[in-house]
Amino acid sequence: MVTCSFIPGGVAAAKGFTAAGVHCGIRKNKSKRDLALISADCLCNAAAVYTQNLVCGAPVTVTKKHLAAGKARAVVCNSGIANTCNADGIEKAEGMCEITAKALGISPGEVIVASTGVIGQPLDLDPVKSGMPHLVNELSKDGSGNAAQAIMTTDTRKKEFALTFTLGGKECTIGAISKGSGMIHPNMATMLCFITTDVAISSPMLQKALTAAVADSFNMLSIDGDTSTNDMACIMASGKAENREIVSENEDFALFTQMLSTLLIRIAREMARDGEGATKLVVCEVSGAKDQGTARTVAKSVICSSLVKTAMFGADANWGRVLCAMGYAGAEIDVTKADVSFASPAGRVEVCQNGAGIPFSEEQAKQVLLEEEIKIDVRLHDGAACAEAFGCDLTYDYVKINGDYRT
Amino acid sequence: MVTCSFIPGGVAAAKGFTAAGVHCGIRKNKSKRDLALISADCLCNAAAVYTQNLVCGAPVTVTKKHLAAGKARAVVCNSGIANTCNADGIEKAEGMCEITAKALGISPGEVIVASTGVIGQPLDLDPVKSGMPHLVNELSKDGSGNAAQAIMTTDTRKKEFALTFTLGGKECTIGAISKGSGMIHPNMATMLCFITTDVAISSPMLQKALTAAVADSFNMLSIDGDTSTNDMACIMASGKAENREIVSENEDFALFTQMLSTLLIRIAREMARDGEGATKLVVCEVSGAKDQGTARTVAKSVICSSLVKTAMFGADANWGRVLCAMGYAGAEIDVTKADVSFASPAGRVEVCQNGAGIPFSEEQAKQVLLEEEIKIDVRLHDGAACAEAFGCDLTYDYVKINGDYRT
Repeated sequence: MVTCSFIPGGVAAAKGFTAAGVHCGIRKNKSKRDLALISADCLCNAAAVYTQNLVCGAPVTVTKKHLAAGKARAVVCNSGIANTCNADGIEKAEGMCEITAKALGISPGEVIVASTGVIGQPLDLDPVKSGMPHLVNELSKDGSGNAAQAIMTTDTRKKEFALTFTLGGKECTIGAISKGSGMIHPNMATMLCFITTDVAISSPMLQKALTAAVADSFNMLSIDGDTSTNDMACIMASGKAENREIVSENEDFALFTQMLSTLLIRIAREMARDGEGATKLVVCEVSGAKDQGTARTVAKSVICSSLVKTAMFGADANWGRVLCAMGYAGAEIDVTKADVSFASPAGRVEVCQNGAGIPFSEEQAKQVLLEEEIKIDVRLHDGAACAEAFGCDLTYDYVKINGDYRT
Repeated sequence: MVTCSFIPGGVAAAKGFTAAGVHCGIRKNKSKRDLALISADCLCNAAAVYTQNLVCGAPVTVTKKHLAAGKARAVVCNSGIANTCNADGIEKAEGMCEITAKALGISPGEVIVASTGVIGQPLDLDPVKSGMPHLVNELSKDGSGNAAQAIMTTDTRKKEFALTFTLGGKECTIGAISKGSGMIHPNMATMLCFITTDVAISSPMLQKALTAAVADSFNMLSIDGDTSTNDMACIMASGKAENREIVSENEDFALFTQMLSTLLIRIAREMARDGEGATKLVVCEVSGAKDQGTARTVAKSVICSSLVKTAMFGADANWGRVLCAMGYAGAEIDVTKADVSFASPAGRVEVCQNGAGIPFSEEQAKQVLLEEEIKIDVRLHDGAACAEAFGCDLTYDYVKINGDYRT
């Protein structure tokens, strides 16, 4: 039996890391922090997953290059400007790394760089340069919250989490900050997430663990079906927990991966809950699938459906839309064997058995769906595989936020 | 040089066809027609394309069976209830054919049946039975408008079009009615469309022409990314134009297919314009693609993006979202060679060259995007293939309509 606890401290909770976030002037609004820094005391093993969008932000290109050897010491990230689709984007991203490295006394190649915001507008490095001394000065074990705020765009809540557990007899910690509220879609590392840990683990094993954990968390998340150009999830491991270094897929590796998944699923849920304009978290759990690929495909199709999302907004038990989305998911399933129910803290209501409607109380269904966290439970009766996907409702505010984002 | 003219008469314009639409009582609102009939004077060659959703409405299953031999004499369609995901759906769909056939003095197997509306609610055949004599009595050459109204759900405008042209020295006509406003997504026959023609053409050639015309029209249309369970486009050919029957892929076949495409593209545009909650038609034209598959994939990805759709609603020239959607389309393209412009009756504004932003007047861009018909023009500079996709903006009213559809 593995035990773990969520603790405060976010991305600076693990031994060896500090964080900070300040307003440097990329954004005009002085009350909004716009530059974040995460710093490690030592050179860390590092790994990352990136957007699969062909239009790839310049910071992603630069970070890929810097992480080629699986090492890093810091993360710098601005919000407000994505630094994507700019002719001088690479130069600017390299410039951010140089400014950061100089201030920290490290090499530019040891810096992970990220940007998030409007695509196609030029990034001015002057605020980064002028704000960097203050940012470095702010670095502390208590700085995660400010860093989390500095990477937010349309997010309404900062996302920072940390998890502690015992591995190889040592107390270990994984922490993270993330941002992401729109332009989020499964099967990519669909947002920004910066993770730190004090577990000792080799870069190749770190990459494997991250890829596996992302498959169950961020890749099962969709807000609006749009895959961002600047998404990345990266992890730095300081080794300061002093466990025996994980260098193969042994029991410690399995435990670490499980803990990392637990943390990232928590983050994915919070990102879905804070989806642009969302009023509720919608989780689709598919069980009884013939294999996990099928379970994932069906779960993602349901939470991606605009019609399911609007029905959830309206607290309307329109289960036909759930079946419809299952039917076009692209998975081989027998819909005539499928059962569907809706569940929430207010109860559970069965609405469909063997692919056909059954009588249910509309009033009770309404009560269930008026809650802020809804489970759409799909049982395929075709095997033992299961998966969960994380989404949100589609609301007036999503349209409002995105009809007028740049102005 | 081929000439053709749009004429009145809709689905009853071609020689040999009459149509009608009445309120029979499937819907409670007595002012809304809910049952449509299209009748042919003779047994017609017929063809159809169907939804690829695994959850397939009972009427689709029954129509596939009835059209197995490529012959039909009538189309019956109700709105209000989809007759999908009901245990007795097949029986009810067959029942609708029997009631129709009896009233027309034809065989039930000669009837094409369709239903559109809420999924998973039982279809009561009593109103169909009691309304059928009146419906048959109403059949006329002027009945297309009523038939078009009777198949509407959330559509705000009836869709009926007819086209006349000369083929083999004979005056020929193709006409259609269609419905579709939500749950519409490319790569399927994504709505209901009933087409009639007096051209003499064999069933296999009719199927080929329909499939080709749908590829350029309905399969390039998306309202909301949800593929309906009940979609179908079918065509009946009476042969009464007395042209030499088309039995091979000759020049007459090419001309007929071109005319059919012209009609269906016109309908696809009107369906997109009348998308649920839409305030404007958005057309994405991709040119300079290395092949047509690439052009279609990129064009569809752009018009499907929720972020592009909300930007169009807000008249916001946020071209970065266009590039983003091109990048995740799944096609092999070089985004660094791509140009993008927005155009409308108010003018044209170039916003992106070689994958990077260029200076443009935001004020002029706003004027262009405030129009009711927007063209997003993407030039890939990688070949000679092109494609157009048809969509609409995403608005508050889409959310309103779908948050509360069943009540």
